[in-house]
Amino acid sequence: MKNFFNPQSVAIVGASNEKGKIGQILMENAGQSKNLKLFPVNPKRKKINGIKCYPTVLDIQEKVDLAIIVIPARFVLQVVKECAQKKDPIKNIIIISAGFAESGEAGRKIELELKAIAEKNKLLILGPNCLGSINATDGVNLSFAKNNFPKGNIGLIMQSGALTTALLDRAGEEGLGFSLVTTLGNKTVLNENDFIDYYLKDKKTEMIALYLEDIRAGRRFKKILEKIKNKKPVIVIKAGRSERTKQAIQSHTGAMAGGVEVLKAILEENRAYYTAGIEELFDLLKIFSTFPLPRNNNLAIITNAGGPGVIATDLIEEAENINIAQLQKKTIDQLKAVLPAEASKVNPVDILGDALEDRYQNAIDVVVQDKNVGGILALITPQAQTPLKKIANTLALVNKKYSIPVYPVFITAHNEEAMNVFKKNDLTHFVYPEEIINALNKFFSNQKTKISSEQLSFRKNKQSSSKAEKIKMIAKKDQRQVLFYKEAVSLASIYKFNPLGATYLNNERDVSLVKKFPIVAKIDSQTVLHKRARGGVVLNIENAQSLKKVFQQMQEKFPNDLILTQPMVEPGVELIMGIKNDREFGSVLLIGLGGVATEIFNQKIILSLPTNKENIKQKLENSLIAKYLMKERISLSQVVDEAFKLATLGFENDWIEELDLNPILFYENKTPLAIDIKVLIK
Amino acid sequence: MKNFFNPQSVAIVGASNEKGKIGQILMENAGQSKNLKLFPVNPKRKKINGIKCYPTVLDIQEKVDLAIIVIPARFVLQVVKECAQKKDPIKNIIIISAGFAESGEAGRKIELELKAIAEKNKLLILGPNCLGSINATDGVNLSFAKNNFPKGNIGLIMQSGALTTALLDRAGEEGLGFSLVTTLGNKTVLNENDFIDYYLKDKKTEMIALYLEDIRAGRRFKKILEKIKNKKPVIVIKAGRSERTKQAIQSHTGAMAGGVEVLKAILEENRAYYTAGIEELFDLLKIFSTFPLPRNNNLAIITNAGGPGVIATDLIEEAENINIAQLQKKTIDQLKAVLPAEASKVNPVDILGDALEDRYQNAIDVVVQDKNVGGILALITPQAQTPLKKIANTLALVNKKYSIPVYPVFITAHNEEAMNVFKKNDLTHFVYPEEIINALNKFFSNQKTKISSEQLSFRKNKQSSSKAEKIKMIAKKDQRQVLFYKEAVSLASIYKFNPLGATYLNNERDVSLVKKFPIVAKIDSQTVLHKRARGGVVLNIENAQSLKKVFQQMQEKFPNDLILTQPMVEPGVELIMGIKNDREFGSVLLIGLGGVATEIFNQKIILSLPTNKENIKQKLENSLIAKYLMKERISLSQVVDEAFKLATLGFENDWIEELDLNPILFYENKTPLAIDIKVLIK
Repeated sequence: MKNFFNPQSVAIVGASNEKGKIGQILMENAGQSKNLKLFPVNPKRKKINGIKCYPTVLDIQEKVDLAIIVIPARFVLQVVKECAQKKDPIKNIIIISAGFAESGEAGRKIELELKAIAEKNKLLILGPNCLGSINATDGVNLSFAKNNFPKGNIGLIMQSGALTTALLDRAGEEGLGFSLVTTLGNKTVLNENDFIDYYLKDKKTEMIALYLEDIRAGRRFKKILEKIKNKKPVIVIKAGRSERTKQAIQSHTGAMAGGVEVLKAILEENRAYYTAGIEELFDLLKIFSTFPLPRNNNLAIITNAGGPGVIATDLIEEAENINIAQLQKKTIDQLKAVLPAEASKVNPVDILGDALEDRYQNAIDVVVQDKNVGGILALITPQAQTPLKKIANTLALVNKKYSIPVYPVFITAHNEEAMNVFKKNDLTHFVYPEEIINALNKFFSNQKTKISSEQLSFRKNKQSSSKAEKIKMIAKKDQRQVLFYKEAVSLASIYKFNPLGATYLNNERDVSLVKKFPIVAKIDSQTVLHKRARGGVVLNIENAQSLKKVFQQMQEKFPNDLILTQPMVEPGVELIMGIKNDREFGSVLLIGLGGVATEIFNQKIILSLPTNKENIKQKLENSLIAKYLMKERISLSQVVDEAFKLATLGFENDWIEELDLNPILFYENKTPLAIDIKVLIK
Repeated sequence: MKNFFNPQSVAIVGASNEKGKIGQILMENAGQSKNLKLFPVNPKRKKINGIKCYPTVLDIQEKVDLAIIVIPARFVLQVVKECAQKKDPIKNIIIISAGFAESGEAGRKIELELKAIAEKNKLLILGPNCLGSINATDGVNLSFAKNNFPKGNIGLIMQSGALTTALLDRAGEEGLGFSLVTTLGNKTVLNENDFIDYYLKDKKTEMIALYLEDIRAGRRFKKILEKIKNKKPVIVIKAGRSERTKQAIQSHTGAMAGGVEVLKAILEENRAYYTAGIEELFDLLKIFSTFPLPRNNNLAIITNAGGPGVIATDLIEEAENINIAQLQKKTIDQLKAVLPAEASKVNPVDILGDALEDRYQNAIDVVVQDKNVGGILALITPQAQTPLKKIANTLALVNKKYSIPVYPVFITAHNEEAMNVFKKNDLTHFVYPEEIINALNKFFSNQKTKISSEQLSFRKNKQSSSKAEKIKMIAKKDQRQVLFYKEAVSLASIYKFNPLGATYLNNERDVSLVKKFPIVAKIDSQTVLHKRARGGVVLNIENAQSLKKVFQQMQEKFPNDLILTQPMVEPGVELIMGIKNDREFGSVLLIGLGGVATEIFNQKIILSLPTNKENIKQKLENSLIAKYLMKERISLSQVVDEAFKLATLGFENDWIEELDLNPILFYENKTPLAIDIKVLIK
């Protein structure tokens, strides 16, 4: 992978003399890179940019670390083959050319062949249909992006070349800079996982931002996130959420754990960040870029204007995960000593409209010492005497000197002098208080995920899973996709659930044998999805006569389905618990509020499997579901126990496509009762 | 009021020669204003800025439209008196000086006296402790703010001078400009209401932005909002939400309709906007500033880069009140004619990275014709050939030519050339898609409020209110603040509610007379707030023996309270309905989910009184409460009917401080039943 960022020699296939052509821009960009030997390849030219040109890569006698290909798609395969055929093969290739899978059926075929050649010859290929890669740290530009991006500590991995250009252009304005930049293109061979892995080891890369339109190797992505958590922050924009092909969804769990929800859960579990917009991405990156990390989630405000101070205070108080710091008495006393009498010495600290840089300095020197304060927002409005440049200098210094962040919020017009100070000092700034406040709120929301040191080395229990396997095999033999209710009950029993039993009614005689009332009658169907809405559930049948009538009606309406009865049960708190096999990321566990609340409030938590009780408990406690359960006097640990049983069931039986316990009833003083269970097989 | 923005003659009391002094800045600023005769007042000077100076205002013989006072607080009253004493009195005064109520007790006394003098002499006073006022349209700066603010169509009313300075400075960068600007200061005489009223009539002012730290004349504010709705958009930042003094709150309604909730409700009812941050304020203002208003809430995206187009699509799809427009077949065909083959002709329309200004022009020319499209986001990323300046020009033209907006989103570094085009054409732009998307979502959320032409000329019914009055009088005579339950039942009955009756148990004999079980026993208390939590409610008492025991325990625990019993009732869907008399804005009606949901999900709607069934219905339908009721098969119109009864009760009886129906039970096929009623008297 190193050769995509630090090659010693590069062949540019499709190099050109013609200005504006990508083959020329690549020559220029690569030509400015340090210590890089270039081999232009173009059968029509002898020299390009004064460098000897080769007809084909086969003609280059020296060792070549990397080939960049920028010729029409239909010629690409031949060149790739030649790279592999060389005596000393070129194993690393960037394909800039478009015209592959993204362009239709013909292109898709070429891309499949490309993949096959790469696999056979163990070639690493970036692209096709990409912008290339950049090592900003060492000044190696192997892309056709302009050379004007700022250096810094952000590793960028992008599935859109045009967006990359915009981010590189805009970043300087925002005070951000890059270490390594990769544009993925069609991800035929190398994908985001390969680069995250590489960036993890790169010393200059302190955080990783990804723009992804699809995730094709989700299980590996998950493993890599587990490896990187606590080491480098990872921030992901996942686009194309609204276009996502809907899978055929048959269960409530399937519906509730659809779309981007599973990705969000997996990012959260690994303290990675999910963002929806570019501004949010930049604001989050700023927290990690050049400031110390906040010490805790209590913030102090130092401002030269009351209004913005009050606005920021409100926004912080209203944000869920951050607070206004309560300053210590000592701090307030010290502020009294250094600030004018009319200044406010409580938080927000108002150092007044005539504040110069020294007053900012003095107030900051005091407040950073206060252990109650985790970070400081320095708000600057342009009053008559406000020395913007000098204040910018002061803020650059304190951010180097102290171990807590002092975020500059310059609510002013574009000021060239101050901007230059920011740039010179690698100092990021904000224009509006909400930018940093929203980012910090997100940062601390993420910190709520406790990362347990315990490895999730979950051992499957052979005994239970082989029993379960037998249940599946019978259904498979019958070519059924759905377990019968009685089979689902057996499966649940293996994992120590308390499922509500059922009596099947096969004929009128069975009906006449039923003696205990009231009861419920239900169909047990392979095909009917919403049986309650379709009339497949009748509650509160009070006597034999009613049951007979219901039985006849159900037989008529659902001739292909079984009919069963269950006793009426005591009302309890309804939860829905489920398992879903996500196509990209594997099995997940879902816990949600049941009954009417399911659809109205959509309160749910999702955990990837395997998991443990600690994870379930923590995620539950951070949700409204826990509040609700406590109000209803339901023991949280009981819910965690049941959820963990289900997690075990789900992890041990990867043949389960979807599973619903909907609802499972919880009581103040009784064993939880699963009254309906639906199991779909892969 | 005109004299605060278009005076012909101004006296500046405290005018100064000394550079940097406010008295000098005011002379300079006012001196640059057109057709304005200045009278500097300063006993120590003969001339200031070459203009004759007067010892006192009494010495000025000519007519003076406005006095601006900028001398220490302790001398201000004398000057104000002199203004009033003049043969031709100066009726309009701006007091810049600080040192009044904001500075402590001494200042508060001066301010009270100032108020008295103003009332006695019918003086209009702006301030004290303010920055002054600005008529940007006519170039009249009667403030000490710098003269560098852009002209435009925003009327600004600000309760913070320093924030005003920041907004004026920043606005140019954002492409916004101002017509009239007022800084309110301490609002001793004139407040926001006076200026909104004036701005409403000002032709150049097309929208009004307010920053308020308190609202002291809420009922008038509400009336003015009613007057201005449908005429000019009003956007309010209300700061100091987190500092708000907590009123003593005794009912659930009181708690749920506290803080800023009532203001938000009143703004929404009048299609005014509530914002929490400065960026959000600016983004909203941009929608109204120089673009046509969107035709509907379906948006088209025209982009030169796929990635940002997908990001914007996702954000729009995920926003509640806006959608991605479905382009007509005709549109797609026409796009095919004008765009390259590889371009995407469905929404988002991708005109490719090599697009020049003509391709933007061509795509826009087609898409604006599509009636499905309400507005267009033009996304621009800086690709190799992208002519930013020319595209800015194109976008300026189309926004003048067409009747739907084309919002420029330049995801680029600060580009001076493009910025100059924006400025020259009064064209606002955005940097990130989420800015305009969030603002549009807010705009269309606001549009959901249907403004009925019907006036709320609610006539009080003398008969019912005089009956109710009698109930209150008895409580008043007893010096009770809370009605007995039986009184509350009588009150509810007057307004045709169906309250659950009660039998009082005064002694053991009463207890022995109870024959029907099961029942509920409750205390009827003047003092206990949370009677259920305190053990003042016992449910499901099954026999006489249990009742006796409960009665004895309650007597012991609550010796000063009455004890009553009610029958157990059939469970239904619990709502909470209430009335609260808001100190600032008068009575409001609250409807919320009852039971456990009240506190967990905090779903509620608030309406100011008087109101009508149409308003209640509409607001209910826009809330999750309606979804919940429909799932539970409760008729919405029944809920609206009950709510309107309560609205009538609340509006006719303004002696009610707080009233809770908590809960009122709704059934699928039964009359709603109010099972607990609490009424607090003012």
